[in-house]
Amino acid sequence: MKIAILGGTGSIGEGFAVRWSGKHEISVCSREADRAVKAADEYTMALLEKGLVCCGITGCTNEVGIKDVDVVVLSVPYQGVVELLKSLAPCFKDQIVISLVVPMEKNKWFKYSPPKQGSAALEIKDILPKSVKVVSAYHNISAKKLAIPDLVLDYDVVVCGDDEDAKKVVMELTKEIKNLRPLDGGDLGCSSMIESLTPFLINLAIRNRLSDLGVKFL
Amino acid sequence: MKIAILGGTGSIGEGFAVRWSGKHEISVCSREADRAVKAADEYTMALLEKGLVCCGITGCTNEVGIKDVDVVVLSVPYQGVVELLKSLAPCFKDQIVISLVVPMEKNKWFKYSPPKQGSAALEIKDILPKSVKVVSAYHNISAKKLAIPDLVLDYDVVVCGDDEDAKKVVMELTKEIKNLRPLDGGDLGCSSMIESLTPFLINLAIRNRLSDLGVKFL
Repeated sequence: MKIAILGGTGSIGEGFAVRWSGKHEISVCSREADRAVKAADEYTMALLEKGLVCCGITGCTNEVGIKDVDVVVLSVPYQGVVELLKSLAPCFKDQIVISLVVPMEKNKWFKYSPPKQGSAALEIKDILPKSVKVVSAYHNISAKKLAIPDLVLDYDVVVCGDDEDAKKVVMELTKEIKNLRPLDGGDLGCSSMIESLTPFLINLAIRNRLSDLGVKFL
Repeated sequence: MKIAILGGTGSIGEGFAVRWSGKHEISVCSREADRAVKAADEYTMALLEKGLVCCGITGCTNEVGIKDVDVVVLSVPYQGVVELLKSLAPCFKDQIVISLVVPMEKNKWFKYSPPKQGSAALEIKDILPKSVKVVSAYHNISAKKLAIPDLVLDYDVVVCGDDEDAKKVVMELTKEIKNLRPLDGGDLGCSSMIESLTPFLINLAIRNRLSDLGVKFL
């Protein structure tokens, strides 16, 4: 498959690029092509140094990256995502868009602060063309751990979405990352629960002096 | 310590009785003394048959059980809890009250439906005398698994409360149940998050054909 990673120069973006590059063509996307190309080269070098297979990681602008891909990973902060997607909306056709976006505020502690639609995923669905299939997933995976390509991740990934086929694609992509277990979290209306887990996990980590917490249901 | 279990004849109540009876005096409480005594005898017999130590499990009415105990476990359904606690409020002094209560509705799926205070724990705090210390915990532990006294429970228990000493007592009680790890979840205002995990876990279990799900943060 062809996968474009928006926010691909950030740490969680790096994780997906290195994890999926063994089987898929990856476009690392950024507002600036130079930064994207530089990041793509770095990820490729890191994989080659580890002796890992890489089908190709290229860097490009968001506009170029989105076109003609199967999956777009939206690994960008909530702040600015609405503006970004409105400007990119004409580039979308019928891609699967995976939203990792979590709207949260920080005072002393982190707090989930969803938009009026009820979750970031639903807000994103509202902005993009109706033919785009939004799937919500990977909110609670440590960027640091994901970016280590051979580290086994013994976590669960709850996947929400209204399009069952798109959800299945994301669940299969999840299984390709060693030991991640995808779980069906229901439709996109259920996304608020998994989005809200993120500030909860961050607070829990701070309070209990833990770090990079993920979750496992057993 | 002396521990009274309200809703002690139900499955999650049974679990706490058999798990803590090795070190503490347990009162299994019910509206009807007969039912409570019968349940207490059954739990004691089951422990003795397994050759496990038991400091004493007795059965009594809610009113009798609450008096002169250190800890009251509130393992009752949300429906009716307000009425129950209003009637029992005069029996409370300065006990630690552990709320396992989860307000939820069921249509096709389970949905968290907190009262106006924001969570069941905050509503319960409002009803009881100010000297009572409400702690919120154990919402996501399987009743079935807890009731098997020698089964290792490799789960996390997030504990919320406004009184740090009371929270510590509950965290120590948690450690007495093999492999449960207590985690500090913050003040009682944070209880809504752990309460809302319960309907989420039930839905997740149904959707993915799993059962008795607990949670582990790692």
